[in-house]
Amino acid sequence: MNAAERMVLMDKEELSAFLAETFPQVAGDFRLEHVAPMSVVVRLMVREKHLRPGGTVSGPSMFTLADVAMYLVLLAMIGPKGLAVTTNCSFDFLRKPVAGRDLIAEARLLKLGRVLAVGDVVMRSEHDTNIVARAGLTYSIPPER
Amino acid sequence: MNAAERMVLMDKEELSAFLAETFPQVAGDFRLEHVAPMSVVVRLMVREKHLRPGGTVSGPSMFTLADVAMYLVLLAMIGPKGLAVTTNCSFDFLRKPVAGRDLIAEARLLKLGRVLAVGDVVMRSEHDTNIVARAGLTYSIPPER
Amino acid sequence: MNAAERMVLMDKEELSAFLAETFPQVAGDFRLEHVAPMSVVVRLMVREKHLRPGGTVSGPSMFTLADVAMYLVLLAMIGPKGLAVTTNCSFDFLRKPVAGRDLIAEARLLKLGRVLAVGDVVMRSEHDTNIVARAGLTYSIPPER
Amino acid sequence: MNAAERMVLMDKEELSAFLAETFPQVAGDFRLEHVAPMSVVVRLMVREKHLRPGGTVSGPSMFTLADVAMYLVLLAMIGPKGLAVTTNCSFDFLRKPVAGRDLIAEARLLKLGRVLAVGDVVMRSEHDTNIVARAGLTYSIPPER
Repeated sequence: MNAAERMVLMDKEELSAFLAETFPQVAGDFRLEHVAPMSVVVRLMVREKHLRPGGTVSGPSMFTLADVAMYLVLLAMIGPKGLAVTTNCSFDFLRKPVAGRDLIAEARLLKLGRVLAVGDVVMRSEHDTNIVARAGLTYSIPPER
Repeated sequence: MNAAERMVLMDKEELSAFLAETFPQVAGDFRLEHVAPMSVVVRLMVREKHLRPGGTVSGPSMFTLADVAMYLVLLAMIGPKGLAVTTNCSFDFLRKPVAGRDLIAEARLLKLGRVLAVGDVVMRSEHDTNIVARAGLTYSIPPER
Repeated sequence: MNAAERMVLMDKEELSAFLAETFPQVAGDFRLEHVAPMSVVVRLMVREKHLRPGGTVSGPSMFTLADVAMYLVLLAMIGPKGLAVTTNCSFDFLRKPVAGRDLIAEARLLKLGRVLAVGDVVMRSEHDTNIVARAGLTYSIPPER
Repeated sequence: MNAAERMVLMDKEELSAFLAETFPQVAGDFRLEHVAPMSVVVRLMVREKHLRPGGTVSGPSMFTLADVAMYLVLLAMIGPKGLAVTTNCSFDFLRKPVAGRDLIAEARLLKLGRVLAVGDVVMRSEHDTNIVARAGLTYSIPPER
């Protein structure tokens, strides 16, 4: 089945509200910019706490961005289920992010199966074309779905 | 540096000839379809030997396709060096390929550094939009470069 | 649940026979050396066809070795099911294998769940302590189980 | 070269002091338990901030633990260099950690090359034998070394 054949079950406002409710610790760091079938764009609003010495966004902050973006695109397609969990991720860290800029992640679902969802994420510093990091993530979808 | 700023150092004919010379065991299974800055399209001409029981293209055949495609896009950008080696790959196998069809891989270089080159590959059965597998690969570039 | 709590459902002879029957194209290249709860040791009997220029075992041959070893340890624990499929693998290629030697892979299951099995593999050239490659693999177990 | 042939260049106290100085934001969350040639054991002292809803340690916290553990084993072998950076990681999340327990990570270097260091990490909840997560990480070592 192709992206074009699938419909979004939650829109930007619904997804943002669900994230704020389910993950209040991190939701304030992210802003959902765009939702389309099988893809989302998410911004990490970079603050002091996301930085490593030298002013670079830390690896764990990039990991969280990828994870949140993939979670949101999955929710967009399967509806509000809090229980999907990351089972695998692979990450290539390619370049230092540009200091003092937000990170913008584009996540797309490549497969939405019955028990597994697989996607990838690329992230760039705002207003920059270079890819800072690339990730592949797999989510396990709980059977009660 | 962006894709647009880089020039291809080897064209389709030169790359195909170099592959045939360097990897004669496998070169006959592949056809380079397209070369552009930082990206290539490569076809696996699927034969009996690439199949698993049930007529599906085997995992090792898909691995080889991804590896060859990434090698070719790297050569296209750095010129004819036989010594670059794969240091890491991550693979998501998403769907069974369509039986009886060639596999088409699109490889792009995401980073071309001094010692490391990183890229990703998506592959589809010919005339099909679904992604069969996605891979991320890292190549180590020998220092004599 | 721990390795010690699980019992092997197929022994070395049964696993070898099942592999020969199910994957006749590749079974002759491998020899199952040892089976224990949640782990196996498998040998790739290196021949001309597994080599790259320079006499090194090729990446696809190492991929196949890891995949076969993980398949066998999974079968050992769940019994003769032909339908488990690899959904993800990540590979680190660390060193050139020693020329002219068999490759020995140790595979262990780290998780045997209802729908997913996850394990890792390390491989060495025979009579050498250095790790040549390390892989993590995930298999999807068909629901009819 | 084997683990036994290499000597540790920094001991537990030196590594702990270097971490506290270089990464003051996170150093307080971790305790280096053991250092040996090519391997370390690191504890994440789990607190409220590391948890997801339900009381489970979050993915980003596990990522940070793996990254810190690999950084420390690398430093132990190459001495106090602040500039090594993670270039790749692959992560399998296998089970929920046991609620209310610290996470214990064992990291080992599988290859310590001139420009790349590769290792893996397994983590368990304290006093539990089950593996919670497994990771492979690659660090790039700066040339000035």
